[in-house]
Amino acid sequence: MKAHVSSILLGVEDMERSKRFYTEGLGWKVERDYRISVFFKSDGGSLVGFYGRDGLAADVGTSPEGSGFTGMVLTHVVRSEARVDEVLAEAEKAGATILKPAATQPWGGYGGSFADLDGYIWNIGYSPRGKNQPYAE
Amino acid sequence: MKAHVSSILLGVEDMERSKRFYTEGLGWKVERDYRISVFFKSDGGSLVGFYGRDGLAADVGTSPEGSGFTGMVLTHVVRSEARVDEVLAEAEKAGATILKPAATQPWGGYGGSFADLDGYIWNIGYSPRGKNQPYAE
Repeated sequence: MKAHVSSILLGVEDMERSKRFYTEGLGWKVERDYRISVFFKSDGGSLVGFYGRDGLAADVGTSPEGSGFTGMVLTHVVRSEARVDEVLAEAEKAGATILKPAATQPWGGYGGSFADLDGYIWNIGYSPRGKNQPYAE
Repeated sequence: MKAHVSSILLGVEDMERSKRFYTEGLGWKVERDYRISVFFKSDGGSLVGFYGRDGLAADVGTSPEGSGFTGMVLTHVVRSEARVDEVLAEAEKAGATILKPAATQPWGGYGGSFADLDGYIWNIGYSPRGKNQPYAE
């Protein structure tokens, strides 16, 4: 199996609420809206899509029950500390919960994190050491 | 904020066990091993990395407690039904739990799903309708 994530599917409680958060709040653009699922235009990296949480669980053959930390974090690496601050402010204004305000990290980077309306966690970061991948923005 | 996932971080219980599953079991290659985190060479899409589960939770400012369905699914879209079967067999041999054996889906595609050693879910699929993105393999 190749190390390739085609898409990241997030099970959401309220599709319209989540669409508003990501489009009106964060400025993402819908690429395909199948009503039971929505995919966003990707600016690089894996596609992101939504399904209803129960439907997604059924689709992969598991129970929808679950709570607490998912164990998964999505990162978004930007080109400056100022951009970290801007993205976190934009997310908070859109209704996200700031979990960790932006701060300099022990290893020298700068970043902070937020949870979206369903609790999915994004870590927004900047690293002065350069990365092996392009910056998200 | 751009619609770009730089990397997907998975909190794992046992770093060495998870590394063996993804490298020896699935054939992935380690790109950077920082001991507290491991990143794999990406064949396209977002990078995938591991952290210890507790450390990852602390890093993003949340409690590590959590159980059940994470609400998130990683997909891997391949070019044939036969390849779906092969990837699922490879994952099962490596110790994954098959959640849904490969079968034709109501919408015409073909796929199945597995959970890795920490319960993270992969959906392996083939779609005859073509995709807006390259196949993973």
